[in-house]
Amino acid sequence: MSAGLIFRQLFESKSSTYSYLLACEVTKQAVLIDPVIETVDRDAGIVKQLGLVLKFAINTHVHADHVTGSGKLKSLIPGCQSVIAEASQAKANVRVKHGDKLQLETRSTPGHTDGCLTYVLHSHRMAFTGDALLIRGCGRTDFQQGSPERLYESVHSQIFSLPDNYQLYPAHDYTGQTVTTVAEEKKFNSRLTKTKSEFVDIMNNLNLPYPKQIDAALPANMVCGLQD
Amino acid sequence: MSAGLIFRQLFESKSSTYSYLLACEVTKQAVLIDPVIETVDRDAGIVKQLGLVLKFAINTHVHADHVTGSGKLKSLIPGCQSVIAEASQAKANVRVKHGDKLQLETRSTPGHTDGCLTYVLHSHRMAFTGDALLIRGCGRTDFQQGSPERLYESVHSQIFSLPDNYQLYPAHDYTGQTVTTVAEEKKFNSRLTKTKSEFVDIMNNLNLPYPKQIDAALPANMVCGLQD
Repeated sequence: MSAGLIFRQLFESKSSTYSYLLACEVTKQAVLIDPVIETVDRDAGIVKQLGLVLKFAINTHVHADHVTGSGKLKSLIPGCQSVIAEASQAKANVRVKHGDKLQLETRSTPGHTDGCLTYVLHSHRMAFTGDALLIRGCGRTDFQQGSPERLYESVHSQIFSLPDNYQLYPAHDYTGQTVTTVAEEKKFNSRLTKTKSEFVDIMNNLNLPYPKQIDAALPANMVCGLQD
Repeated sequence: MSAGLIFRQLFESKSSTYSYLLACEVTKQAVLIDPVIETVDRDAGIVKQLGLVLKFAINTHVHADHVTGSGKLKSLIPGCQSVIAEASQAKANVRVKHGDKLQLETRSTPGHTDGCLTYVLHSHRMAFTGDALLIRGCGRTDFQQGSPERLYESVHSQIFSLPDNYQLYPAHDYTGQTVTTVAEEKKFNSRLTKTKSEFVDIMNNLNLPYPKQIDAALPANMVCGLQD
């Protein structure tokens, strides 16, 4: 991954989810972060056309708003392995924890869920934050072991501690934006620039509706989106 | 623009349009390619937060599927000037033609419309192709001076002649993809890899519906999206 990077940001419109394809130009080995089951055929097609070998389908956490594509990718692409946090308690081929390296540095960033990971690609000054940090926002903390206190600590200690010019790629955006930076979020994030107690108040009073796909998504995502 | 580039790809979901913000990290001077009237407030907010000076709101062509944001941006950001092709016959502060340089190289790529331009940023190996070339596709050629023969010649002579590793950013994508390369489109574009006569046949038999927003969009876009 230290040579030239092949990088594709891919959007699934029903759940406004971003998936990220990263591959080494030399070895052609690839990973896909947060695939969505509805767009797996598109993604497998791109992998094939670019001549890549998909090694890992990686989830930043157990998603509640869409079914992961990792199980379906495994069936389409032999040799592809699913990856998720040990703390998620979900089933996967590889269960990782804070500090593990998959060529990407793994940082534990709980608060939206217990098993939230942020993946950092230092060679290209990029981090993939899942739902821990969104552009000018963050994931909700009112279900799936959510905790505003833990989320605040995670973002400040694990993401805002990265260099200012690191590009941050979230798992979702609902406004058509695609990327942000550490410097921008430290300055303009409407929630995480507050004090911790203000942040907790904000998060505890969002009064959000029950997530539409959660009852189908959570059981499916605990087993990679497909029963083996 | 030769120093570090600030680059943002921005999506408008109603018309599946991409806008592109490009700015010099040193001078902070910025251009916005293909703004959409619905997302102008978002875009002006990003320009402001990043401390940029928006010099030009640039259109790749007179769009038929959405109203351009260039007029509204001019009213929100004093000093911002609108740019479009001379061949479009639309009203704008600056009317450019093939070969002009706005720090971006201007390439005439007619066929979807007469006034279609592709903007090339050689320093960063990027080109913004408007509707002349889409990811694995191209713009339609059945209205607004459309001509499949001219589009085929434009893409082959002006876009496929760029180096293989140039990244191509289209004005639209309907599948959630964000970028492609010259090499990929030369190999995998389902229409433009055909012979010219096959391409003309395909384009003349698409039987597409009349564009939903065209009757409102065309007159508005001939005057930058706003009456002065």
